[in-house]
Amino acid sequence: MRKRIVGVIGWHRSTSEVEQKAQKMGKELAKVVDVLVCGGLSGTMEAVCQGFKAGGGLTIGILPGYDKSEANPFVDLVLPTGLGLARNVLVVKSSDVVIAFPGEAGTLSEIAYCLQFNIPVISFHSWNIPGVIKVKTIKEAVETAKELLKKRGL
Amino acid sequence: MRKRIVGVIGWHRSTSEVEQKAQKMGKELAKVVDVLVCGGLSGTMEAVCQGFKAGGGLTIGILPGYDKSEANPFVDLVLPTGLGLARNVLVVKSSDVVIAFPGEAGTLSEIAYCLQFNIPVISFHSWNIPGVIKVKTIKEAVETAKELLKKRGL
Amino acid sequence: MRKRIVGVIGWHRSTSEVEQKAQKMGKELAKVVDVLVCGGLSGTMEAVCQGFKAGGGLTIGILPGYDKSEANPFVDLVLPTGLGLARNVLVVKSSDVVIAFPGEAGTLSEIAYCLQFNIPVISFHSWNIPGVIKVKTIKEAVETAKELLKKRGL
Amino acid sequence: MRKRIVGVIGWHRSTSEVEQKAQKMGKELAKVVDVLVCGGLSGTMEAVCQGFKAGGGLTIGILPGYDKSEANPFVDLVLPTGLGLARNVLVVKSSDVVIAFPGEAGTLSEIAYCLQFNIPVISFHSWNIPGVIKVKTIKEAVETAKELLKKRGL
Repeated sequence: MRKRIVGVIGWHRSTSEVEQKAQKMGKELAKVVDVLVCGGLSGTMEAVCQGFKAGGGLTIGILPGYDKSEANPFVDLVLPTGLGLARNVLVVKSSDVVIAFPGEAGTLSEIAYCLQFNIPVISFHSWNIPGVIKVKTIKEAVETAKELLKKRGL
Repeated sequence: MRKRIVGVIGWHRSTSEVEQKAQKMGKELAKVVDVLVCGGLSGTMEAVCQGFKAGGGLTIGILPGYDKSEANPFVDLVLPTGLGLARNVLVVKSSDVVIAFPGEAGTLSEIAYCLQFNIPVISFHSWNIPGVIKVKTIKEAVETAKELLKKRGL
Repeated sequence: MRKRIVGVIGWHRSTSEVEQKAQKMGKELAKVVDVLVCGGLSGTMEAVCQGFKAGGGLTIGILPGYDKSEANPFVDLVLPTGLGLARNVLVVKSSDVVIAFPGEAGTLSEIAYCLQFNIPVISFHSWNIPGVIKVKTIKEAVETAKELLKKRGL
Repeated sequence: MRKRIVGVIGWHRSTSEVEQKAQKMGKELAKVVDVLVCGGLSGTMEAVCQGFKAGGGLTIGILPGYDKSEANPFVDLVLPTGLGLARNVLVVKSSDVVIAFPGEAGTLSEIAYCLQFNIPVISFHSWNIPGVIKVKTIKEAVETAKELLKKRGL
């Protein structure tokens, strides 16, 4: 059996309120999926890794640069791509389902890639683009992710 | 003097109405900029290349695949990246200014990259995202591109 | 603690003799390192994944294409990059130490990247380029990998 | 007619003797091919661009980083990929024929990609890998490039 992978995207700077939610979401996600993939940096990415790891999951950070030490301390596996923003494709394409936290243009590019690859993307107070699945609560996000994985036979 | 580069993005399938506009826009753009960069495929990309070449400009196609023959016949210089959709970064980052035609998620990812890289992006009936410069006519698009290049000292 | 990663490179077509060695090497490597990264395809890559997984390790396949089903069945985590041969950089750069099996130009490009990134590369009957560490036996390869990781404080 | 493209690879640091040869080679190459593609940086790349431009050709620099100002002053068209060393694939794959000057691991990775893509690579006192075409003089290099393009119907 292949391991199931959730991708989480969102701003590397972010408010402590959002980060608290990301951490909590990470912990809940670890109950329904094996691996979390993200951009590996700080802010939302760090918070969600911390929660997911606390929940017993494995975290992967796909970095834009070449320096492994740029990964946040809750990343188990660091992939230092050196691809710059082209690494956004990899974060998304590795995932079976993606959850988008609030973010700026970088997050938008990742949502766009989800839509282009036909990977389901759950918008948790993030960009509202036709095609995303909007949710309001952590519980709703995790339940939706779970159902989407089930639908895909994962 | 470095050559000035305009990027044009938009759907590879597209209506003949949009393609007529793209061709006309290409011809006008050739009067104010030296080089046109695009994704090199069909639809909007082919039409705008045809016009730009007719106007005396040089066209570059940055392909997602490895096969040079996938480029439309109006591409002078074919760069077959084999990078898949990660090549979207290159189309945008090579450009001094970008014009977005109607498109889907692929176009949206390119607009997002423009915003992230702080490259001015003119939306010609394309996505309406905070940060894009909306224009309605071909003339307006070309004039705006010209001014933006001037502002950047190009 | 970050997980230690070994990269294994080599031909996707290969002889059954080489594959038997790759499988055995994989099993031994699982005793000294946590994660194995490779190109995810068949031949040497499949054999080494099979062994490493049998030894209790976690396997990652960094694919050139977008189709997860192209990964060999012993890959736990599939990263479908769609980057074509540019993904060779990622296989190498993710690794703390690399072992090269016999291979052709693809393997050579990966060895070259190791040298450029200053990642130690052990040549197990593979290319003999100045800078690689040549070994003759499986035992020697695994011992050398172990020592190199130790030297790097991993 | 598509423009014919020669790729030139070699060390960004290099001796003045090699650079003089690169400049002379560039000037000669401009007589038989339309466009020169290289990594866009200093050393061999700068010298060959200078010569090619003096000979009336168009030069393209495919940079590893995002900063256009890193290109040498003889690059007409700057493509700032931000892909790091993965940009080596692009330099090679854009070319109809490649000439390798003396270089280190970076040059070796590019030669390896040539061999993998089946793009003819002429080694001008560079790496001696099975499959490269070894030449000793500038004249021999240019004549060989010319013949190889002819053979490919370019």
